[in-house]
Amino acid sequence: MESCIFCHIAKKKIPSEVIYEDKDLIAILDIAPVHLGHTLIISKKHYPNILKTPEKILAKMVALGKKIGKKQLEALGAHGFNLTSNTHPAAGQSVMHVHFHIIPRYEKDGLKSWRQKKYKPGEAEKIAKKLQLN
Amino acid sequence: MESCIFCHIAKKKIPSEVIYEDKDLIAILDIAPVHLGHTLIISKKHYPNILKTPEKILAKMVALGKKIGKKQLEALGAHGFNLTSNTHPAAGQSVMHVHFHIIPRYEKDGLKSWRQKKYKPGEAEKIAKKLQLN
Repeated sequence: MESCIFCHIAKKKIPSEVIYEDKDLIAILDIAPVHLGHTLIISKKHYPNILKTPEKILAKMVALGKKIGKKQLEALGAHGFNLTSNTHPAAGQSVMHVHFHIIPRYEKDGLKSWRQKKYKPGEAEKIAKKLQLN
Repeated sequence: MESCIFCHIAKKKIPSEVIYEDKDLIAILDIAPVHLGHTLIISKKHYPNILKTPEKILAKMVALGKKIGKKQLEALGAHGFNLTSNTHPAAGQSVMHVHFHIIPRYEKDGLKSWRQKKYKPGEAEKIAKKLQLN
């Protein structure tokens, strides 16, 4: 897409630090990393988010995410990593082109998990009914 | 594994609110949700994290994640969702059995993204060299 920054990056019209590339995917350093080495996996073809991305491409993205996470542990000495994809702006998606974040993590790095709630009696059952997929 | 809570859930030895099940995977409501409907996708076989999980299973997990996210938008009126897997305790992994979180999100729901840093001149290039996969 003409106006999409990740399309421009995939076509090398905008420079980036590339750590991996194949015919379907490119992996680059996020220029605003949560921790240094924070990597983005981007599909070369434009899909707005994972809902619009073929399962075959998603499978390749998560397989690559596994490799990148492993490399972050080995090459950066990270103690863990997060693999995340955000769908829609309400979830923190800032570029409307499908991508996964691989964020290296360190013990006691101060990044907080979101606060968790509790279900009231009977509430979880109702929600589970709404979400049934089988 | 004998001591693994997710193995017990997969075998129905511990009750949970199941929203999907097939021969490889089970999807249940997280009992301590970030938002109501927060779902966990768990592999039935025990793998400690994504690094140890076959790519075929990971592909199934992310494909199911897409379906669950779509359902959260439709059935709960969520405005977006996060699909995340945390590897190792430093990254927030609390159960050492591979799982993905699908977290429904809402506009202005107050959940904050982690603060982002900047690279010093030349620093991104060095890190990219360390992380090369091609």
